[in-house]
Amino acid sequence: MTAINDLLAFQRQTEALSSIAERLGWDQETVMPRGAAEQRAEEMGAIEAVLHERRTDERIGEWLEVAEPQTEAETRAMDLIARDFNRASKIPARLAQELARLTSLSQGIWAEARAKDAPEEFLPTLDQVLMLKREEAAAVAEGGDLYDALLDDYEPGITGTEIAALFDQMRPRLVALREDILGVENQPAPLTGHFPQETQLRLARTCATAFGYDWTRGRLDLAVHPFSSGRWQDSRITTRVVEPDPFNCIYSTIHEVGHSSYELGIDPDYAFTPLGRGVSMGVHESQSRIYENQMGRGRAFTGWLFKRMSDAFDDLNIADPDAFYATVNRVTPGYIRTEADEVQYNLHIMLRFDIERDLISGRLNTEDLVEAWNARFLKDFGVAVDRPANGVLQDVHWAVGLFGYFPTYALGNVFAGCLNRALREAVPELDTSLAAGDAAPGVEWLRENVQRHGGLLPPKQLIEQAIGESVSPEPLLAYLEDKFSRIYGL
Amino acid sequence: MTAINDLLAFQRQTEALSSIAERLGWDQETVMPRGAAEQRAEEMGAIEAVLHERRTDERIGEWLEVAEPQTEAETRAMDLIARDFNRASKIPARLAQELARLTSLSQGIWAEARAKDAPEEFLPTLDQVLMLKREEAAAVAEGGDLYDALLDDYEPGITGTEIAALFDQMRPRLVALREDILGVENQPAPLTGHFPQETQLRLARTCATAFGYDWTRGRLDLAVHPFSSGRWQDSRITTRVVEPDPFNCIYSTIHEVGHSSYELGIDPDYAFTPLGRGVSMGVHESQSRIYENQMGRGRAFTGWLFKRMSDAFDDLNIADPDAFYATVNRVTPGYIRTEADEVQYNLHIMLRFDIERDLISGRLNTEDLVEAWNARFLKDFGVAVDRPANGVLQDVHWAVGLFGYFPTYALGNVFAGCLNRALREAVPELDTSLAAGDAAPGVEWLRENVQRHGGLLPPKQLIEQAIGESVSPEPLLAYLEDKFSRIYGL
Repeated sequence: MTAINDLLAFQRQTEALSSIAERLGWDQETVMPRGAAEQRAEEMGAIEAVLHERRTDERIGEWLEVAEPQTEAETRAMDLIARDFNRASKIPARLAQELARLTSLSQGIWAEARAKDAPEEFLPTLDQVLMLKREEAAAVAEGGDLYDALLDDYEPGITGTEIAALFDQMRPRLVALREDILGVENQPAPLTGHFPQETQLRLARTCATAFGYDWTRGRLDLAVHPFSSGRWQDSRITTRVVEPDPFNCIYSTIHEVGHSSYELGIDPDYAFTPLGRGVSMGVHESQSRIYENQMGRGRAFTGWLFKRMSDAFDDLNIADPDAFYATVNRVTPGYIRTEADEVQYNLHIMLRFDIERDLISGRLNTEDLVEAWNARFLKDFGVAVDRPANGVLQDVHWAVGLFGYFPTYALGNVFAGCLNRALREAVPELDTSLAAGDAAPGVEWLRENVQRHGGLLPPKQLIEQAIGESVSPEPLLAYLEDKFSRIYGL
Repeated sequence: MTAINDLLAFQRQTEALSSIAERLGWDQETVMPRGAAEQRAEEMGAIEAVLHERRTDERIGEWLEVAEPQTEAETRAMDLIARDFNRASKIPARLAQELARLTSLSQGIWAEARAKDAPEEFLPTLDQVLMLKREEAAAVAEGGDLYDALLDDYEPGITGTEIAALFDQMRPRLVALREDILGVENQPAPLTGHFPQETQLRLARTCATAFGYDWTRGRLDLAVHPFSSGRWQDSRITTRVVEPDPFNCIYSTIHEVGHSSYELGIDPDYAFTPLGRGVSMGVHESQSRIYENQMGRGRAFTGWLFKRMSDAFDDLNIADPDAFYATVNRVTPGYIRTEADEVQYNLHIMLRFDIERDLISGRLNTEDLVEAWNARFLKDFGVAVDRPANGVLQDVHWAVGLFGYFPTYALGNVFAGCLNRALREAVPELDTSLAAGDAAPGVEWLRENVQRHGGLLPPKQLIEQAIGESVSPEPLLAYLEDKFSRIYGL
């Protein structure tokens, strides 16, 4: 009994320290004075050093040898601790430090190169990041596939080959749907007008409340790139305001409410254990996406939102709720992943997935990267990239070493498609409630079937238990084809 | 060379972790969601455990044995590290934990007892706190005076006997001054009117700027009890708004700007070393008080403030800058230390100092505490305490174990008096600048002569180097007698 208790007590403190590090990150992006960057870097370095020491502490290995878990939760907690310990122990301390140092520098180099549209100023750094990430992958993979070793850090239990097969199923139908949509003569009107910041934020708060965000355990602040942060009793969200485009603020908020609600919805018994957080990036994204898209951009909720926005702003220049619904869901050609609509978003991911797999395997060199990106974009999207900032330089992920992260976004969409089908069957009254500005029936079903379990079940098993069948891209594709055929009269 | 470098590198990380703990404290009092209290307690416990382990780490003792400092700063850093290490090592871990646990509980018990005006509900807890604090003092004092051992944690290098002698010099002149003032027939008018929160906060920001607060390294937020937090590149201040009394917000802000400016003014070379923070509570308070009182409540600055407030608010009902100056500096009978004017403030401290020394020595038991407080208050202030919340229950300090802290407030006033005399001689143009809403000449003199040195010199030595003579209460008393004789026409 002592070993398991010692192990969990040690982990409890590690979880608390890790939660502090995340709170510091929130502080940095929201409220920190701008002159405090160096100090914060030193503070983050200090707490990360403590965390690294704890994660590779030899005692963990000893406890794991002899600990006897008494419950399902303890067994799973031990598995997750063992997983992190083994991974962390395989990565040499020297490599971990080099990666930390390089990726904190490379973010700035990337940002500058993007601002100057000068990929040549970034590619040498990317080369170094790639070299270290391949070294990390080799240390973890121990002879296995390098890309899978990286992917496993974000989405345990799935391989690059499985994702490639999934994407191959999805690509032709998404390309066809996009072509059909863009071929329609009468396209929905864009939103035009003046939308003051304060009003946008008030609406965003109203929407967060509509989606059940618990304000006693969270708050909303502004950040350059919206994110959510924290868990248990304190999960905060951020949003941004682009004054001509209030949908940016509103849907970023609903998206982050999905992430935060997942963390806040986990069984409190799992707090300060490895089960006390979202189980994978893909499952996390499924929650943010189903809040934002299947519920938030549906006809029912947008009907309610149309009324709220018509009251809040002078003149929306939009005739009725149906026209508003079409405007919210407009599909337009575009270069940027984060601005993409539901139809095209996954195509952006597929492009990145194939390219990053080739970079990690060595099939593609960074010197050929720009050309590879542009050729693939033309093929999948039918337009040529106009400049690097709208192409290969648009995302920060590779600069900071996040190889294997992109596919979890699309996987989240696939999971959201599956969950949405099951949710609609289980809760037929959901749209009636959404039309009244209340997502509670949907939120409750997701809490009960997904969120409360935290890390208890592996990602795919969790989703399949929730939906009662195998994970497949079919529900997502059927949902998109149905939704957009109606909007565009296909 | 290795030992000194290892010691300072280890300390650097400890300082960074300690800075994180302080930032969490700020978060808790300003922006944390109210439902996050338990989680935050667990997080604070985790980082405090890491800090305690580091502060008592055996390697510190080994490094101190053999380290060879190369500079004056390194020598002093070693002294300060040795001081903390010796103190922390003398306190048994069991006692430190019990104190942490008890004082986190006792704050709530005190707050409830105060709200209910029921000292009997708090005194048994205070008894336990006292017992543990005496145990701590005995462990640290090793046969020496118990009270001095506690005092030394806040104000190194001064004894209870020295403070008692200082206070004996001050008390009769302060009592006499107060009696003269309260005997005057025409008392200054109080401020009346309506002062909206947003306008108060805007004025507070203007005042902070007038006192040179560096907004690129700080920010202003609301808190129940104003405080400042952090150092180096990130020292934040808080204030509160009491709508009928805008002076509360404005002078709390200027006070906290004094504290923060001290931390921000320290030589950046001392960052993340034991020299990189204010050297004692008394010196800290000297900075906040000279900003708030000798500069902020002087005739010159209040003249400028009168104009700003007349512009900002509808009608101040005050005739001219002289009348306004008298209103700012009104002396009225009152029970509460934190609301006291410059004349009576130190009398509140003297009462607490004598009582807490008797509690620690055992000359006074908690069962006689209420009576002792009330008798002393009647003697020093000439009025009877009306209820415990206005008497012995008004301050949180004893509940959380801060015995030996109170006298540093009065010591800060004494230091401020000394510094003000030297400052006025060195910078004769200060009032001209303050009258134009710019404290820069005063701030610069304080930065050069006090703030930038951080912990390099012991408190008294630092002040005496700055003023070129011995520390004495005379300048403070002369300043108060002169200022209030003029205001009240004595």
